[in-house]
Amino acid sequence: MIESQPANAPTIGVFDSGFGGLTVLRALIEKLPRARFAFVGDTARLPYGSKSRRTIARYAVESAQFLVREQGAEYLVIACNTASALALDAIQDAVPVPVLGVIEPGATAARHASKTNDVLVIATDATVQSQAYTGACRAQGLRALEKACPLLVPLVEEGWTNHPVTEEVIDIYLNELRAEAWLRGLNPDTLVLGCTHYPLLRPLIERAVRPGVKVIDSAEATAQVAAQIFNGRGCPILAEPAAADSVRVGGASIEVPQTEIRCFATDSVEKFERLGSRFLGRPVGKVELLDLGG
Amino acid sequence: MIESQPANAPTIGVFDSGFGGLTVLRALIEKLPRARFAFVGDTARLPYGSKSRRTIARYAVESAQFLVREQGAEYLVIACNTASALALDAIQDAVPVPVLGVIEPGATAARHASKTNDVLVIATDATVQSQAYTGACRAQGLRALEKACPLLVPLVEEGWTNHPVTEEVIDIYLNELRAEAWLRGLNPDTLVLGCTHYPLLRPLIERAVRPGVKVIDSAEATAQVAAQIFNGRGCPILAEPAAADSVRVGGASIEVPQTEIRCFATDSVEKFERLGSRFLGRPVGKVELLDLGG
Repeated sequence: MIESQPANAPTIGVFDSGFGGLTVLRALIEKLPRARFAFVGDTARLPYGSKSRRTIARYAVESAQFLVREQGAEYLVIACNTASALALDAIQDAVPVPVLGVIEPGATAARHASKTNDVLVIATDATVQSQAYTGACRAQGLRALEKACPLLVPLVEEGWTNHPVTEEVIDIYLNELRAEAWLRGLNPDTLVLGCTHYPLLRPLIERAVRPGVKVIDSAEATAQVAAQIFNGRGCPILAEPAAADSVRVGGASIEVPQTEIRCFATDSVEKFERLGSRFLGRPVGKVELLDLGG
Repeated sequence: MIESQPANAPTIGVFDSGFGGLTVLRALIEKLPRARFAFVGDTARLPYGSKSRRTIARYAVESAQFLVREQGAEYLVIACNTASALALDAIQDAVPVPVLGVIEPGATAARHASKTNDVLVIATDATVQSQAYTGACRAQGLRALEKACPLLVPLVEEGWTNHPVTEEVIDIYLNELRAEAWLRGLNPDTLVLGCTHYPLLRPLIERAVRPGVKVIDSAEATAQVAAQIFNGRGCPILAEPAAADSVRVGGASIEVPQTEIRCFATDSVEKFERLGSRFLGRPVGKVELLDLGG
């Protein structure tokens, strides 16, 4: 029999402003099924996408400190593009453990995917305004063009992930982005999904991009980097298959590893439990209410 | 020459989770151009629409106390349907001045407008879940059917107030609402806009409702009630015309009363200044940053 978690399995803390980051947790579980995970969704104060750097940093540091001090996280993944873009340094300064954001892994994956070295990035307002992807891509020798798509998160949360209106909105945004790329003389062959809600729209987005354009999911790219780091630290066992349970999601029966996950939300625990499974691809189970006092 | 504010003009405090409540402030200025106004938009913690009653009440009370204690407000208008629905009692308990929400005035206006006594209400998730409009309408002898329309706020904030996608989304929501009304044997002739963002969609919504259906704007209805209260208190001068300035909004020159307005936001002051004029129908001027510590 396969044990789920080795006795000394480290706890990986995963943080998001809401439950979108569960797409990152899902990818992490796939790569590291035998680690332990503690997830915080700061649902009382979401969305971060329309807030200032100062406010976002203050909020993100509080959640990061909870994960390290109270949950014993030995490693932190910031599963929120906006917080990664605007608060990674502040979080790193505030906790004594390594911190991985989603921006750099996304940019690295784009470099591997792109032949033209021109990439497009879609994200929230605050992520785009931070130009964090532009900077991370430039450091990889890529030219990036970013666009804010503020309607996509509400469309996902409305459950319209396969809806004609969503298709139309994606077309409008991507057409505007392509026109802008053309004006700037770019020849993009790669599109980065710079928001953790967007993987749920991946089928629609892949239909909307031109043939040959590769779609990069920062969630997957981040999990890949995290797995490499733990392998490099002599913890390859974390990536070995864990015992699995059979669970029902959306009417279908699927096998999910028996990975130890604790989920916390700062508000709307029921909504988190109800909607979270769409993002995690499995039931999120019991979500604990966390008061960060904000 | 007409003086703008009488020396003893009272300060009316107006509170919203964001800048949508500026549609209520706009209606208040029209009815009471010679009062003073202090407005708080709790932009650091918006949207309230997806948060729990406990969290909303805590946030709303902090803003209300600031308006009364620091700005000397002698009267409070809660220009936020969600806060009116979930926190009116908590606010009334926390401050020593009269507090007016937007729900009851909306229900009263619906009673005056409706002949069938069946009304429809569109609002945010939290407002609908609170069933505050259903209760307020029942107290007026009306049957109300409520529907959450979570995409309309982001569409307004994207600036798509006259866009085919918005038209399509409104049609989808209203068709679902009409089907539900039909199933329940209702014959609605009135639609209440139960969110302060929705007045910006009024032209599209009026095109989408059936002929003969009246559209009620809670913002206007609330300003009407506030004006009646101040007239009843022997302050009819507040409703008299004030001196006016000529300002440019959206390329057109309009006359606006020289009403004294102070605007505060808990975050994203620049965004407030930029987008607020759409809601207020005039430039919002300098917005002051307010730290409520949350």
